Amino acid sequence: MQSDSLEIKPIGAIHSPFNQAGSAPIQPVFARGAEGTVEVLPAYVDALADLEGFERIWLLYWFDRAAPFKPRVTPYLDDRKRGLFATRAPSRPNPIGMSCVRVLSVEGSTIRVGDIDVLDNTPLLDIKPYAKRFDSFDVSRQGWLDAAADKQGESDSRFYRNANDKGS
Amino acid sequence: MQSDSLEIKPIGAIHSPFNQAGSAPIQPVFARGAEGTVEVLPAYVDALADLEGFERIWLLYWFDRAAPFKPRVTPYLDDRKRGLFATRAPSRPNPIGMSCVRVLSVEGSTIRVGDIDVLDNTPLLDIKPYAKRFDSFDVSRQGWLDAAADKQGESDSRFYRNANDKGS
Repeated sequence: MQSDSLEIKPIGAIHSPFNQAGSAPIQPVFARGAEGTVEVLPAYVDALADLEGFERIWLLYWFDRAAPFKPRVTPYLDDRKRGLFATRAPSRPNPIGMSCVRVLSVEGSTIRVGDIDVLDNTPLLDIKPYAKRFDSFDVSRQGWLDAAADKQGESDSRFYRNANDKGS
Repeated sequence: MQSDSLEIKPIGAIHSPFNQAGSAPIQPVFARGAEGTVEVLPAYVDALADLEGFERIWLLYWFDRAAPFKPRVTPYLDDRKRGLFATRAPSRPNPIGMSCVRVLSVEGSTIRVGDIDVLDNTPLLDIKPYAKRFDSFDVSRQGWLDAAADKQGESDSRFYRNANDKGS
């Protein structure tokens, strides 16, 4: 099993109204109305062609302020510890986040996006189109999340560095 | 804008029946029936707790055999060049793939999965639960993919190293 480290490079940055851990919505679904921008480096502008036709895109990004990995954490939407991989908490072995945001416009190196739940100045890793056929599944079992179906998403600083770690 | 490189480490490996670029389905939706396993390293076994309750999970992985990034490529489901970020082609600046697969069982360090579209021995980067509220959107505009709605997903070697590069 391969275990050498791999190198990734930010391809740009995400800008949002959310400056502090605990101020950001925990998922785009709780971020209706929040607008931000995605700015790609010059080398990647040409690769944005055809993106404006998509209503939504996936942003993959680096949780640069996340606390170190712990195998079990208490998620925002629950009050019990859960296996980290059964949660979307940012304190992951590879702190890669993914959010499905709304495309408002694409101009030059800038994508204006809606429903953004990402902290300001987050390093951008990838952009992929959202495709219903590939990404939308009508699942009937969602583990511990089924019991949290009506909970609201309020974040705090538990998964971020230098914060009082409620998730420990 | 940050541009230092970041380090990621495989947390395990994905095993599938697909050994060669061009033999794998291009998305889980075209991989119905294909089964594989996800094997995590010992340090991550405890973090698999509670995962079995989920019908589907996201696998994030490293396209280790992908050709280098090109800003425009001809996707499998189209016959025109498109901006790379408007496609799911593997030859990305950061070759990170994501696939939503079905959970069949979780035992020790092994997850048996269905609808797998990933090449055998692919380095695993992350596992996240699939949540309808976060991941399922009824989008009405899907750019060039709208015209490809009834196309079947057949892959070839165009996005892989040492292959005849039809996507160039």
